[in-house]
Amino acid sequence: MNDDALRYGADTPLSRRVVAMRSSAIRDLLGDAQRPGMLSLAGGLPAADQFDVEGIERAFAQAMREAPRVALQYGATEGQPSLREALASLMAQRGAAVAPDDVVVTAGSQQALDLLARALLDPGDLVALERPSYLAALQAFALSGARFVAVSGDGDGACVERLLAAPGPAPKLVYLVTNFANPTGATLSLARRRALLDWAVRRRVVVVEDDPYGELRVEGAALPPLVALARDTPGAAHWCAYVSTLSKVVSPGLRIGFAVLPGWLRDAVVRVKQALDLQTGSLAQEVADRYLRSGRLAQRLPQLRASYRERRDALCDALAARFGDGLRFARPEGGMFVWARFTDGTDASALLAAARDEGTIFVPGAAFYDGAPDAAALRLSFATLAPPQLAEAVERLARAHRRLGGCDPTALAKREAGATPAH
Amino acid sequence: MNDDALRYGADTPLSRRVVAMRSSAIRDLLGDAQRPGMLSLAGGLPAADQFDVEGIERAFAQAMREAPRVALQYGATEGQPSLREALASLMAQRGAAVAPDDVVVTAGSQQALDLLARALLDPGDLVALERPSYLAALQAFALSGARFVAVSGDGDGACVERLLAAPGPAPKLVYLVTNFANPTGATLSLARRRALLDWAVRRRVVVVEDDPYGELRVEGAALPPLVALARDTPGAAHWCAYVSTLSKVVSPGLRIGFAVLPGWLRDAVVRVKQALDLQTGSLAQEVADRYLRSGRLAQRLPQLRASYRERRDALCDALAARFGDGLRFARPEGGMFVWARFTDGTDASALLAAARDEGTIFVPGAAFYDGAPDAAALRLSFATLAPPQLAEAVERLARAHRRLGGCDPTALAKREAGATPAH
Repeated sequence: MNDDALRYGADTPLSRRVVAMRSSAIRDLLGDAQRPGMLSLAGGLPAADQFDVEGIERAFAQAMREAPRVALQYGATEGQPSLREALASLMAQRGAAVAPDDVVVTAGSQQALDLLARALLDPGDLVALERPSYLAALQAFALSGARFVAVSGDGDGACVERLLAAPGPAPKLVYLVTNFANPTGATLSLARRRALLDWAVRRRVVVVEDDPYGELRVEGAALPPLVALARDTPGAAHWCAYVSTLSKVVSPGLRIGFAVLPGWLRDAVVRVKQALDLQTGSLAQEVADRYLRSGRLAQRLPQLRASYRERRDALCDALAARFGDGLRFARPEGGMFVWARFTDGTDASALLAAARDEGTIFVPGAAFYDGAPDAAALRLSFATLAPPQLAEAVERLARAHRRLGGCDPTALAKREAGATPAH
Repeated sequence: MNDDALRYGADTPLSRRVVAMRSSAIRDLLGDAQRPGMLSLAGGLPAADQFDVEGIERAFAQAMREAPRVALQYGATEGQPSLREALASLMAQRGAAVAPDDVVVTAGSQQALDLLARALLDPGDLVALERPSYLAALQAFALSGARFVAVSGDGDGACVERLLAAPGPAPKLVYLVTNFANPTGATLSLARRRALLDWAVRRRVVVVEDDPYGELRVEGAALPPLVALARDTPGAAHWCAYVSTLSKVVSPGLRIGFAVLPGWLRDAVVRVKQALDLQTGSLAQEVADRYLRSGRLAQRLPQLRASYRERRDALCDALAARFGDGLRFARPEGGMFVWARFTDGTDASALLAAARDEGTIFVPGAAFYDGAPDAAALRLSFATLAPPQLAEAVERLARAHRRLGGCDPTALAKREAGATPAH
């Protein structure tokens, strides 16, 4: 990229893959998000007012009382034994019977993706995923030299049928956010989950199921993770990698993610993790362990879900009221994100610049495409702000939209009668 | 490797580099180290009885009082601003004037090495290092496809002169533990530090200075880090990467390391870190920040150094008393490790098996060579055990040595007169 050549100069012996990397638009927006008065719809930051500060304090106090010299010392690369047990119990609540030994603790789910990429991928290997997709996953795979095969999605998640029908060699792994995908908010249907597993066994493809948001379901019934469905498909457990995190339901600041892996892959991932960071911090693990065992998460989840439901509705209602048919979106059954698309020709990146001036930000859809982005799409997070702030953020967005010459329904009618589109 | 092919089977589409990886002998010994009654000389684990439990508790309480919703939330990939400031102050105490912006917080220094490897290395790139060297560094570089150029060392650290005189293309980076190297315990002399910097500028090589142990100097005068010396060599700052950690002086359980980098390299490393794990945990960072600002580290260091000095002497004195000339080693001026070599033909790996039965373990020197290991060498850590335990561990080691048919000085004399060596 030109700006990188300029930025780094000829005097900088960087890896070719790094020079080719885009910085994450979302991480870059974090700075903007912290400006006073800014109402951010950009980040996937969980609601800070929902953090269980008291619960974390108690968990810390308990860890330091019970095992201070364990919590402050090095530990096993796989993770602290007690936390691996607690995470296996969490998986049982999600419908999957797994052993503590199947669990590897990671530095957030992002590191689990990088570990899987490094354990599995040689340069040039194919990775299949939905388009649009979570960009930081693409980046982790790209850093290991992956090439991508993308399939589109619909209201039932990624169009697995297209993957199954695709000609050419099978990919080495397929990556999907199965519940309330980032950015689309869609959930992979049960039929597609089963079809995907059948295909994975037949074509010998590792299925990486990324599930950071599954617990944040605000309506409808939960679907079983692939690692649970694998029981019904002979041989499927060999190919299922499940990745999740405590960041969205407990706290991102603990930075505790985990992977549930078949033995062959767990051994390889642990070996790679030794070289990457030796282990995830013992202190955060011991705190997370006490927190999970306290039962406070189960007590709090109904309230957390109610709060997210209220926020989702506040955002969706305001968007519908302000933009009408000019903005199309589906109301997700959970998670953090609304994926929307302007039907009036508005360019989301241009809108971001104007919205920032008005005091709100979001992520333009282009950030979720490895190529050929949809310029009219945008991702709006309802997780971080309270309902009145969400309404105000949409007001600001609408003001920015008007400044760009975007529609109220009247203006749209005029534009469709022949005016130049705003971008 | 044969055992990997057996272990993983043909049904496991692992990356070639991962199949070729050795598991870390040191991490593998952690399990043994936790067996009841085991006296471990193996790990680089700091003395748990020296952990400042009360200081960490206070730092946690302060972080949760002052900024709970910052500590539990996502933060910037570079690290929490306040911790970056505190680490810049720590660098000033080490003689290097650096700006907070030059600092990137990492998941231990191990992750800093992986980040540098990924930012800099393309497959086939050359990395220069000392032989023997810290194996997990080799592994991080190898995972990015590095090839190695090794130079030997002596009492003044790596023989930089040989690096300078080496024919062929310059390496892309050179990796050295400059103070109390792991495993050799040697410190790079001032003359060699300056020569290395001159050469790096001339040949355009990134110098990665890994300094986990510098604060653990128990005698002699500290030498300035390369990043401080770079002030005197025009252009040198562009090529200096400094890596360190709080693991050895505060607590490994926090898992806080850091890198001090020139701007071009910092931007690239941050971009890579976004894809690897987004950021290091905010909670651990906020705790570390409060701890560093409390002044307790400076208060405690003299006591910590005195304790390590006592341990070093207990180990070295016992080794000298028990093994005499049969085991050669230099008494290091700091750090955690004694690097020793049997002169009586004892094979350290064979000794480990016998020592484990006697209730002590250490790391055979072979773990620190990428090839052509010195079978007679071993690394002994004095960090973890108290002086009486160190003496007892050496007793056990001597018993194991006798069981192998190794020497007391009398036996050695007999063996040298013609008996078959024990291995």
